[in-house]
Parts: sequence; C-alpha cells; structure tokens
Amino acid sequence: MSVTAAQGFTAAGIAAGIKAPPANGSGGVPDLALVVNNGPRRAAAGVFTSNRVKAAPVVWSEQVLKGGTVSAVILNSGGANACTGPLGFQDTHATAEKVAEVLEGHSAGEVAVASTGLIGLRLPMDKLLPGVERAAAELTAHGGEKAAIAIKTTDSVHKTAQLSRDGWTVGGMAKGAGMLAPGLATMLVVLTTDADLPAADLDTALRAATRTTFDRIDSDGCMSTNDTVLLLASGASGVVPAADDFAEAVRTVCDDLARQLIGDAEGASKDIRIEVVGAASEDDAVEVGRSIARNNLLKCAIHGEDPNWGRVLSAIGTTSAVFEPDRLNVAINDIWVCKNGSVGEDRELVDMRYREVRITADLAAGTESAVIWANDLTADYVHENSAYSS
Amino acid sequence: MSVTAAQGFTAAGIAAGIKAPPANGSGGVPDLALVVNNGPRRAAAGVFTSNRVKAAPVVWSEQVLKGGTVSAVILNSGGANACTGPLGFQDTHATAEKVAEVLEGHSAGEVAVASTGLIGLRLPMDKLLPGVERAAAELTAHGGEKAAIAIKTTDSVHKTAQLSRDGWTVGGMAKGAGMLAPGLATMLVVLTTDADLPAADLDTALRAATRTTFDRIDSDGCMSTNDTVLLLASGASGVVPAADDFAEAVRTVCDDLARQLIGDAEGASKDIRIEVVGAASEDDAVEVGRSIARNNLLKCAIHGEDPNWGRVLSAIGTTSAVFEPDRLNVAINDIWVCKNGSVGEDRELVDMRYREVRITADLAAGTESAVIWANDLTADYVHENSAYSS
Repeated sequence: MSVTAAQGFTAAGIAAGIKAPPANGSGGVPDLALVVNNGPRRAAAGVFTSNRVKAAPVVWSEQVLKGGTVSAVILNSGGANACTGPLGFQDTHATAEKVAEVLEGHSAGEVAVASTGLIGLRLPMDKLLPGVERAAAELTAHGGEKAAIAIKTTDSVHKTAQLSRDGWTVGGMAKGAGMLAPGLATMLVVLTTDADLPAADLDTALRAATRTTFDRIDSDGCMSTNDTVLLLASGASGVVPAADDFAEAVRTVCDDLARQLIGDAEGASKDIRIEVVGAASEDDAVEVGRSIARNNLLKCAIHGEDPNWGRVLSAIGTTSAVFEPDRLNVAINDIWVCKNGSVGEDRELVDMRYREVRITADLAAGTESAVIWANDLTADYVHENSAYSS
Repeated sequence: MSVTAAQGFTAAGIAAGIKAPPANGSGGVPDLALVVNNGPRRAAAGVFTSNRVKAAPVVWSEQVLKGGTVSAVILNSGGANACTGPLGFQDTHATAEKVAEVLEGHSAGEVAVASTGLIGLRLPMDKLLPGVERAAAELTAHGGEKAAIAIKTTDSVHKTAQLSRDGWTVGGMAKGAGMLAPGLATMLVVLTTDADLPAADLDTALRAATRTTFDRIDSDGCMSTNDTVLLLASGASGVVPAADDFAEAVRTVCDDLARQLIGDAEGASKDIRIEVVGAASEDDAVEVGRSIARNNLLKCAIHGEDPNWGRVLSAIGTTSAVFEPDRLNVAINDIWVCKNGSVGEDRELVDMRYREVRITADLAAGTESAVIWANDLTADYVHENSAYSS
C-alpha cells in the first residue's frame, strides 16, 4: 500500500508528540512519518513550491535533490518550520542528521525533510528527535498506510494510490489540498517505484506528471511555503520500463492523488471540474481555467447551486487569453447556458445537486484545452480557516 | 448634496419598476437615477472597467466620453445589461435616445449610460423608458441624494461626498464595493463639479485620483463588467481652479467614497488597511498589497481576529516584487509580529477587536509605499453571494 506498494521500501508512522495529544488523554496523534529506500538504487526527483518564502525543509530538500539521490524521507505534521529563521534551518539539518544516524550507513545529505502545519513556530525538537528513533524501529514493508496517516493535518482522510505494470509498481501518499495553490494544508506527496531508472528519467516523468495534475488543482488560490512532491526509485524490480509507460503510470498515480486532495479540500461541498476548450494555446486555457477557479463570486454561486455563467464570463474577461467576448460559450453540467457571449439554454435545466460540477468554457479561438479542478467557497471554509491557529 | 452639491446640476431618483417591488406591496424600489449638467459647460471625463467582457452601457459610454462632453447620465440598478448581445446594446442606445428626447436640446451622443445588477438579463425597457420621462419630470437641484439611493443594489447605505473650496465644489455619489476588483456590486460613481475646466484637465485629475483610491480597494478580487467612474464639470461657478488644487479635491472626494465602499462591502466584518512600505518601487508595493488583499486564508484569519502573519508572508512570496524573505517585517495593528522573516513581537499583544485592522508589510528593499484597502472573508459573504440570483 501507499509508499510501500513498490518493492524496496519500508515506512513507518508514529505519534511523536509534535501535535498536542487529544484532550481526552487517549494517547498521541500520529505526526511523524519515515520512508526509507532500501535499494538497490536510490535515484530520486523532486518538485517544490514556487513560493519565494520557502520553509526550511524545502530549502534543505531542494539541495538534497540536486544530488539525485534520496535514501530516506522524514515528514512531520504539527508544524511547518516556515519563517523560523536560521534556527529553523538548523532544526531541519539536525532532523536529517538524526535519520542518517539511526538508519546507519546513510548520509544526511541524502535525507529529504518535509514539514506541514502552522507557519512561524519552531518544531519541538525534544520530541521530534526521539520520534525519529522510534519511527526507525517501526519501519516495515507494510508501513505505507501508517506513514500516510501521520502526515495528515486538516485532512479528513489519508490519501494513497498505487498502480502495477509488468513487474514494476508506482505507489504514493499525499496530504493537503493543492500544489501551486494549496490551502493551509500544504501539499506533501511522496511517490515510490521499484522501477530501475536514473534520477534524470524520474525528473522528466515527475515534472510532466505534476504539470497536468497537482499544478492544475486550485482549491483556494493560496500557495504554501512547504509544498513538496518527491519520487524515489529503488530499482528493486530489476525492470527498466519504457519512458512513456513509466511517465503514464506516474501521471495516473498523481492524478488519482490530486483528485483525492480536491475531494477532501477544507470546507468544500463541491468539486468543480473546469475544462477550457477552443483555446489558442494551452497556456491560454490554463490561464482562463485558473481565473475561473479563483473567482470567489463564482465559487460562492456554485456553492449555492446557482449556474451563474455571468461570473464565468467576468472571470474570463480578466485574462490575457485570445478570445472575442461575443464568441464565448459556457456550459454548466453540459447545459450551454451562455452562447456567443449572451444568454443560451435555459439555466433552469442545469442540475447542480451532486458534488461534482462541470464547467466548460469555450473560447472559440483555437483547438487547445486544459482541465483545472477547484472547490466551492463555503461558510465551513471560512470557519475552518478563521479558527485554525487561535 | 451628492451630485447636486456643485452648481449647474439637477438630479432625480425614482422607482421605475426595473427591480421587483417588495413582497409587502409597499410601493416600488428606487432603481433609476438621472443626473443632468445644465452648464454653461459640459466637459467630462470617465474611467471604466478593464474587464474585457464589458457591459453594453460601458461600451456605449466609453464612446460618449471620447467626445469629452456629457450633458446627462442615466443610471439604473436592477440589471447590468451585460452579456446581452446586440439587443442589449440597442437597449442602451434607446435609453440614451430617450434621455436626449425628454430633456430637449440634448444629443444622445452626449448621454452616458450606466447599469448594475445581474449579468445576462435584458432590461425591462417597457418600464425603463417611461421611467426616464418620470425621472426627467422630477429633476431638481436637490435630487442628488435620491439619485444616490436609486443606484444601490446590495449596498446597505447610499454613499455621497462633497467638498467645497474657494467658490467651487466637487461632489459625488457611489455604489458598490470596489473598482479594479469589485464584488457583484459593480462600482458606479458619478462626480460633479462647478469648476470651469476642459475635458483634458478633468481626465488628468480623474485618472490620478482613481489610481490611488478606487483602484486600491479590493473587497474580493473580482472585477466587474460594468464599473464606471464619471466626472462632469458645469463651469457654473465661473472659477478656474489651479490644477493641483482641483486634483487634490477630486482625490479627496474619491478617497471618501472609496472608504465608504469598503466600509459597506458585502458580508464584511473588518476593513483591512494594508500598507506596504520599504518597497523598491510603487508598482512592487501595489503588487504586494494586492496579493495580501486577495489571500483568502489571510482574509479568513482576520475575520477570526487571528494575527496570522505567516499567511502575509505566504502571500508576499507569490509576488515578483524585490525582497529577501529573511528581511521581511510585518506589523498587525502596530505590533511587529514578524521581524526579519521570522517570529517577532508576541502575537498575543495584537488587539483585533475593532472593525479596522492595519497590516504593515515592510519589504526592506527601498523607500516606496502604497496603501490597499480590503475586507475580511466571512460566512455572510458566502451566504450573500451564493443566494444572489437564485
């Protein structure tokens, strides 16, 4: 399951005491995950937040990934270790050193670190470092699910996916609500495979996959300081898959996890699939899709099951994409409520009772397209995010 | 008062039946306003939405303003006349023709038209055109307040401002919640003056004023199809003010109205004053201020009276402004909760009980600054905007 679906990996998830224990005293909350690549190979690739304010573990792990080798990943919930200054970076460094020490024969420079939780708080290292020892003692080839549980923050469920091909497997775990635009729930993803591929090939497959999956979910337009997606290859299957097959497998697992993230976004009651068609370029399609995805008025309307296509047009109008306003067409759940920039089919025909809502925006300017997934804006979202740290 | 504070103007506001009458049968709701410049001069300038999907009245009025002469403005609430195709444009044209006809001696090409309300619905011309006749019959030199009331949509109060200098006056009315980024409540503003100035001077003063007032309020990041700001000069005072004095007066009235718009934004419980200082350029300061203003997570935190400076840093990190992450400083209500990109003064010292919240973001990269006003994100905002058209 999860990061241990592929051969060559062990994982663990434990309660280290980084998160406060529940008030009823019923033991600790899982908050520390360890994933170890037992080889024979330890090639890896990573994609990180493009936010210029990066958490200490992101700065650290970007350096680690430059070497193309990762032997272990240590992940904690309960604290983002972002905006914590040089001391926060020292904490990340000490965590990697501790992992290398307890695993023996590993180098800290090959240990990636990921953190998620509140910004601006130091991690309780007196709990985290002993937790590393306990996590290492609990590593098993079936620990993937426990690891996935330990990285949850506001996630209501843990997220895993896996897929097997001819003799090789890709698996993974995720937490959070988006990548380029995650909620407070930073997105952390660890993918593993037993395919035998060098770091450069992993990097190519991972970047291609994230570009059309995690990069195209947008729960609330906010970009985290901590987003991290890692892909580790053990080579334990001994199989060298064709590049296309491998890329497709990674993309499928990423897509599965991305959809799970949107399906569990904070406070959301609708998953909105925005497909932009008829675009002059893919960039235009993505720009328009993202503008629609981030329009608060539209997100409220979808929450109210109101097929308010005027707000879709307003959002399109703020972009630089190629289009003529009086040629735009918009369908909501397959009813073309806007044709040629004006009133189309009867809006009363649109059935919006179900969780998934499909918006199709036709720019009538070309043949390119893109799909962006978003969520509605709800009172629950406001509640959850106004009460988070206080 | 309002648009009739300056000499040379008459105005009226009536219930034409464009909005549905209240369920209790207690007469109609004001929905049609007429402002007439009786001269001797009729110079005018205008600023319009930069949304590429423009309502018919915006397309019409942009053409009118190119001539630099406006003798009357007709404004309706109850329907935006946006995304209504060629027939919607004909409706706008017919409205201007009707105003020219009933006022006698006026040309339709000098009548500006503004509309606000739902997108995608034709206006009930059978009610609007007779309304124009009734409005013209009720024009008085004291009608400014009634006009301001007639342009309200979701506004809880009508908004007017005026200011008199040595023998000349600038007055105005506004409705809505923002300009570059208004809520469903499109921003409509009509300013009048009895100063004697040509259209080019009005244009200079109006653009300078809107750039630092209406353009810097951002209630929810959404841009309307209908935003319109007009400045009409009658010359009735016979005074030709100095350019600087006039520009300052227009700016002061615009600032007053802009603050009223933010103070009445849909569902808001906080007015957030975001001042970006230490910027390398004014453009940087505005970009950073706008990014902070539009961050849903931060807007929720402010609603929850949570001085969550980490979300301010996350928002700054998404911009292209010049800054170093570890030199950023953030104050909330004058408490520097973030210093050098990390924890600063005790967040418990921040008192957020009052409606106005002040965020100061110091980029430590220069000497430029800008102020952006925004609102918090609340369950009431979600409620109001998910139930609007259904």
